[in-house]
Amino acid sequence: MFFQIVRQCAQSLGNLQGCLDKAERHAAARNFDVDVLLNSRLAPDQHPFIYQVQSACDYVKGAAGWLSGQAPPQHADDERTIGELRERIRKTLAFTESVTESQYDGASERKVKLSWAPGKVIGGRDYLLQITIPNAFFHITTAYAILRHNGVDVGKMDFLGPLNFVDESS
Amino acid sequence: MFFQIVRQCAQSLGNLQGCLDKAERHAAARNFDVDVLLNSRLAPDQHPFIYQVQSACDYVKGAAGWLSGQAPPQHADDERTIGELRERIRKTLAFTESVTESQYDGASERKVKLSWAPGKVIGGRDYLLQITIPNAFFHITTAYAILRHNGVDVGKMDFLGPLNFVDESS
Repeated sequence: MFFQIVRQCAQSLGNLQGCLDKAERHAAARNFDVDVLLNSRLAPDQHPFIYQVQSACDYVKGAAGWLSGQAPPQHADDERTIGELRERIRKTLAFTESVTESQYDGASERKVKLSWAPGKVIGGRDYLLQITIPNAFFHITTAYAILRHNGVDVGKMDFLGPLNFVDESS
Repeated sequence: MFFQIVRQCAQSLGNLQGCLDKAERHAAARNFDVDVLLNSRLAPDQHPFIYQVQSACDYVKGAAGWLSGQAPPQHADDERTIGELRERIRKTLAFTESVTESQYDGASERKVKLSWAPGKVIGGRDYLLQITIPNAFFHITTAYAILRHNGVDVGKMDFLGPLNFVDESS
């Protein structure tokens, strides 16, 4: 369960690369700097696109790390360009994909600490269900929504990515 | 895995009830009809808030139904008021909570058909990972984002709901 779910979160994060392609093309076609999109937000007191991607990355790499008994790699949150943001996603996916299924053995018994909950821990299973899944998809969806709100022609299939449908008769 | 993940999706859907409370209070304080929020959207060609909630409900009830070998209850998508939307969530959660853990036995071997993929099926595990989780959280987050974009003071903790943290020393 842990391996497959973290892998799915990573795949959904990776789908943002296609959304970044569309953001770049949109900005080029309209002749504005794509950084405008990277710094856009849905509300003045909500975090901008760059943060949404950084945060999605952190929840994915955090799950891959803490649930496999490793400290996840530290990334500095210093991305400013679309190229740097792509590299942040790439590094996150590379780490996540480096964790094998067997390294998640015992994940449900692990205790995880989060910087925003000092003095507290959460069990591995609750961390996956209550923290990883909701937060990873929250930030991936919010990143998508910021682009969508700004006119980039992203659609649900860009968000979902490839799906393992097979022919009904097969 | 199936039981716990569908239950988590349902809990996250249920957290929208608290967001609806805040939407109602926001509209009352500003003296506008809360229906304005229900019909708001992030892009002119994206679905409005009501649809986002309906769709989140459908992915949750679909998972609870198809993965437990039952057709999920049909809901008519005729909600127009905040009270009707609350009732839609309530019905969805009641059905989802009626499915016991043992009813998900064999879920990974089930084949699921979706109305938007005619002639195709997807295996139970892929349905959970690739369809249920991404879509349920996509629509819950988009509903949240529409309220946030319109000034409702929802925050991340409204989205996450209660978390099973315990004291580190315990």
